[in-house]
Amino acid sequence: MKKHNFSAGPSILPQEVFEEASKAVLNFNNSGLSILEISHRSKDFVAVMEEARSLALSLLGLEEKGYKALFLSGGASMEFVRVAYNLLHQNGKAAYLDTGTWAAGAIKAANNFGETIVVASSKQDNYTFIPKEYTIPTNANYFHCTSNNTIFGTQMHHFPDTNIPMVCDMSSDIFSRQLDFSKFGLIYAGAQKNIGPAGTTLVIVKEDILNQTGRVIPGILDYSAHIAKESMYNTPSVFAIYCTMLTLRWLKANGGIAAMEKRNNEKATVLYNEIDRNTLFTGIAKKEDRSTMNVTFRLNDENHKEQFNAMWEAANINGLNGHRSVGGYRASIYNAMPLKSVQVLVNTMQEFEKSIK
Amino acid sequence: MKKHNFSAGPSILPQEVFEEASKAVLNFNNSGLSILEISHRSKDFVAVMEEARSLALSLLGLEEKGYKALFLSGGASMEFVRVAYNLLHQNGKAAYLDTGTWAAGAIKAANNFGETIVVASSKQDNYTFIPKEYTIPTNANYFHCTSNNTIFGTQMHHFPDTNIPMVCDMSSDIFSRQLDFSKFGLIYAGAQKNIGPAGTTLVIVKEDILNQTGRVIPGILDYSAHIAKESMYNTPSVFAIYCTMLTLRWLKANGGIAAMEKRNNEKATVLYNEIDRNTLFTGIAKKEDRSTMNVTFRLNDENHKEQFNAMWEAANINGLNGHRSVGGYRASIYNAMPLKSVQVLVNTMQEFEKSIK
Repeated sequence: MKKHNFSAGPSILPQEVFEEASKAVLNFNNSGLSILEISHRSKDFVAVMEEARSLALSLLGLEEKGYKALFLSGGASMEFVRVAYNLLHQNGKAAYLDTGTWAAGAIKAANNFGETIVVASSKQDNYTFIPKEYTIPTNANYFHCTSNNTIFGTQMHHFPDTNIPMVCDMSSDIFSRQLDFSKFGLIYAGAQKNIGPAGTTLVIVKEDILNQTGRVIPGILDYSAHIAKESMYNTPSVFAIYCTMLTLRWLKANGGIAAMEKRNNEKATVLYNEIDRNTLFTGIAKKEDRSTMNVTFRLNDENHKEQFNAMWEAANINGLNGHRSVGGYRASIYNAMPLKSVQVLVNTMQEFEKSIK
Repeated sequence: MKKHNFSAGPSILPQEVFEEASKAVLNFNNSGLSILEISHRSKDFVAVMEEARSLALSLLGLEEKGYKALFLSGGASMEFVRVAYNLLHQNGKAAYLDTGTWAAGAIKAANNFGETIVVASSKQDNYTFIPKEYTIPTNANYFHCTSNNTIFGTQMHHFPDTNIPMVCDMSSDIFSRQLDFSKFGLIYAGAQKNIGPAGTTLVIVKEDILNQTGRVIPGILDYSAHIAKESMYNTPSVFAIYCTMLTLRWLKANGGIAAMEKRNNEKATVLYNEIDRNTLFTGIAKKEDRSTMNVTFRLNDENHKEQFNAMWEAANINGLNGHRSVGGYRASIYNAMPLKSVQVLVNTMQEFEKSIK
């Protein structure tokens, strides 16, 4: 029996993607070959790569605006390095907003390449909110932020205006809501939330912000080298990119980002309403900064933990435990999560409340 | 109908791996979840990662000898950078043997980090042989070589003795033949030939050669950071590593490296014998340096090209065209390639010869 998968990432993908991908592992496009054994230079895979790149740009409304889409390897953590290598000038500086573990990781990586200015941080409150009062130095080479903080369940609902390139790690909420994506000079996202399985990273970069640092960059870390080779600088993660293409096709066929946003808001509202109503739970993130992707909450009385855990496990729910640095629970309700699974969780919380009273 | 897949990489894997992997995409370990949606921190995946790491070391005979196995992301091209970052001292130098396109790529990447000394090169002969007369400077930080040159069809049949750490890119022949792997300080291999699908890179490193450069290394590029996190520094390529574990299980169940070597020698002998016998073909690589993995050859008369191409395509053969920098043909006969597929190719070459006469 299929589980209700609330994992934070790798995480739920559309069932149609699993079914199509499973078939392709045996016989891809009726070629008599597995998707796992075909050349990345084959006509069939080049078509997959091009469709995935094109879908990514068109879903974000970034076609013909000077952006390129790349599918790279190494995860968002590798982009922490690539961003600094490609954008932080020799003897320059970069501005970072510190909203969580991954933002802090990005800052740490950038420190290897030059000066970083942390414009604001919510670390002292264990990242339960998004700082809003800060100034971005206009002489920094770029401003980096994290749109959604998977671990803490916070999300940026407003982005600052700035005249320097804005770089955003959108790993855990890309394609989940409408934004003016042309505000960003560079967007990156590990696939394993709203995009596809683990193993590839989507990078969207405005070409005119590149090649200004004065650095010589090793090819594999150089965005321009990947652009020149149409995202085939070296062997890409064929299967992960194929599944990504399937997921982006599903996204488009299901109404694109606008429809996802509507569904995601519905799901988040149902769940946050229950957290706020239910006398046994409290939300962790500051209300105005709550994420529509990762809903964090805790028991008011930790003594009830075993009982609640047993109940959601019995309800066929998976992946609800919070990250070790926060504790409590985290329900990740990405694009592919159906409302009915959220309803199962809400029902379980209500049953649990009745069982305690 | 299943094709005879002679692709250079991504390439043929055992049919059992495709079948098991296809099932896991729908329901992994009877968990009610796809392998594509499970957390990399889940008990089931941690077990996969540990089994894959352990199988890699035991198949190579490197258990309890101070080595660690890692599954990283970025492909062999990323290891070009990591090797230099982790082993090339500040103001130090590194020695490289230039035997092909990938060796040259490794040298180019290392040039970003310090001085490289090319001890020998066969570039002037389009890499048709492996240089053998060279001296490795004893004051270099390491010596880097490429065991098998996928594009050119050459293979190192002897490795030099040296007292500095020997680093080897074994992307296209790891697990294919018996060697004293303890001669090497670091071995790396992109998965997509003998290991698994594209998307992960196996790194085998002797721990005592690390942390001697005086460099501060960004975490994602630091082997020690990956070792400390048991190859889970960030989200690994879950599916590619799962398929790798299945392939290594198959390898072990089928007699390990010794049995693979015997099969590979058989296959290579059958094919090279035909190339040498058949009046219409000539081998490209120097005989003494011929690879048992990638067999390169060309038509003596290019006018017969269309006819031969039509014949092998009709014989259900895939992926036989040579790399653009060499031309001609390349039959990649990795571990998973059965002798009977090689026999189909040999038969086609014989039929072709008859049709011309």
